[in-house]
Amino acid sequence: MDTIFQHRTIRKYKSDPISDEILEKILSAASRASTTGNMQVYSIIVTRNEELKKQLWEAHFKQNMVLEAPVLLTFCADFNRFNKWCRLRKAEPGYDNFLSFFTAAIDALLAAQNAALEAEYHGLGICYLGTTTYMAKRIIEILQIPKGVVPVTTLVIGYPNENPPLTDRLPLRAIVHNETYNDFSEEEINQIYYDKENMPFYQELVKLNNTETLAQIFTEKRYTKKDNIAFSKALLDVLYQQGFMNNE
Amino acid sequence: MDTIFQHRTIRKYKSDPISDEILEKILSAASRASTTGNMQVYSIIVTRNEELKKQLWEAHFKQNMVLEAPVLLTFCADFNRFNKWCRLRKAEPGYDNFLSFFTAAIDALLAAQNAALEAEYHGLGICYLGTTTYMAKRIIEILQIPKGVVPVTTLVIGYPNENPPLTDRLPLRAIVHNETYNDFSEEEINQIYYDKENMPFYQELVKLNNTETLAQIFTEKRYTKKDNIAFSKALLDVLYQQGFMNNE
Repeated sequence: MDTIFQHRTIRKYKSDPISDEILEKILSAASRASTTGNMQVYSIIVTRNEELKKQLWEAHFKQNMVLEAPVLLTFCADFNRFNKWCRLRKAEPGYDNFLSFFTAAIDALLAAQNAALEAEYHGLGICYLGTTTYMAKRIIEILQIPKGVVPVTTLVIGYPNENPPLTDRLPLRAIVHNETYNDFSEEEINQIYYDKENMPFYQELVKLNNTETLAQIFTEKRYTKKDNIAFSKALLDVLYQQGFMNNE
Repeated sequence: MDTIFQHRTIRKYKSDPISDEILEKILSAASRASTTGNMQVYSIIVTRNEELKKQLWEAHFKQNMVLEAPVLLTFCADFNRFNKWCRLRKAEPGYDNFLSFFTAAIDALLAAQNAALEAEYHGLGICYLGTTTYMAKRIIEILQIPKGVVPVTTLVIGYPNENPPLTDRLPLRAIVHNETYNDFSEEEINQIYYDKENMPFYQELVKLNNTETLAQIFTEKRYTKKDNIAFSKALLDVLYQQGFMNNE
């Protein structure tokens, strides 16, 4: 459908507010997504307050769109509400483990994508913040998130103040496998990445970053092993802290 | 948008095939979803072969819709292709850790929801299989999935052979929090679950299951602590096996 095929990530926003009516549509759309056993083990924190947004902006590596856009939606894997309900109904919940965290994360992410598409359908722009998992511990403090709840992604939402082209994508055969997984030969990798590596935009980026290859921008600048290990430890610590690693 | 608000999970399918044209639209829609740093660290395995579907049916707890529906899409967190590209471009990938797995899982799940909505837009029905994470190890064998790749969810897709009503949802205030997380009092939990607990469908279900409360169906029958712990261990084992737990 058009909304899906016209998606582009927006990084510059107007300060125009989002009406309550449209925001409710976005949140309702999120609530219609598939959810494991209809447990709805996720939550959405809507932040519009300037002081809170400033704190979240700091947590999200000071990306300016966090301050510019009028609404932030923080999507959380959430067994807190469900556990409370169980305990009030003579049912002992066993949802303090890794599987339950991942199940709840799936719920949260499917809901997030519904919200993103509904927002775009109403002419709004969106951006996902990957920094949510890196900085989960700090976000938990800012948004006063209790045990049993872990933020997994954030949507920045607002009216676009830029009109970027569609983002390039690898050819479908890079992501689609027929019947079983068909692993890639060197020749196939070269073919799949040929167009991307020859786009003037990426060739310029390689020059600007002073690397020899495009791949090195990812491994040496953007997503380094050192950062990934630090953030892995931090995220696993958060899973322990929030009560999702009682796996025995 | 209508497609989102009309979603219902379909569990009975006609055997009618899905045309290549529509299937390509569904896969293209998946590829337009947001992806971390435009790395596209996910993959989709399209299974239509009857023998493979039978093996997957066994893995997915013998749910008959897996055999009935013409197409299964297994969505995987996938750093394999990206790692291969890096190594062929003098770039040493540092993506064998938990953060990278979770990043790739987010990519896979956002793509899955786009695919689900595009399928529904074309009149198809869908169902997500939670059994994918429970049985990831077996699915990896069946679909010949290499290291660096973990299946995170499966979409069953086909023409509906039933027309169920919209699924009930908790009121929005159960999942939406204003500014920060507003934890629930006993009174609020009772209010949020009042309508659900008083629906004839669920009251009948409690009788059928011979439990005292609806919550007990979840904790004692459907999602028990014992199962969750066993599946948590299995999923963590898969993360080690597939090379995503080198966090030091």
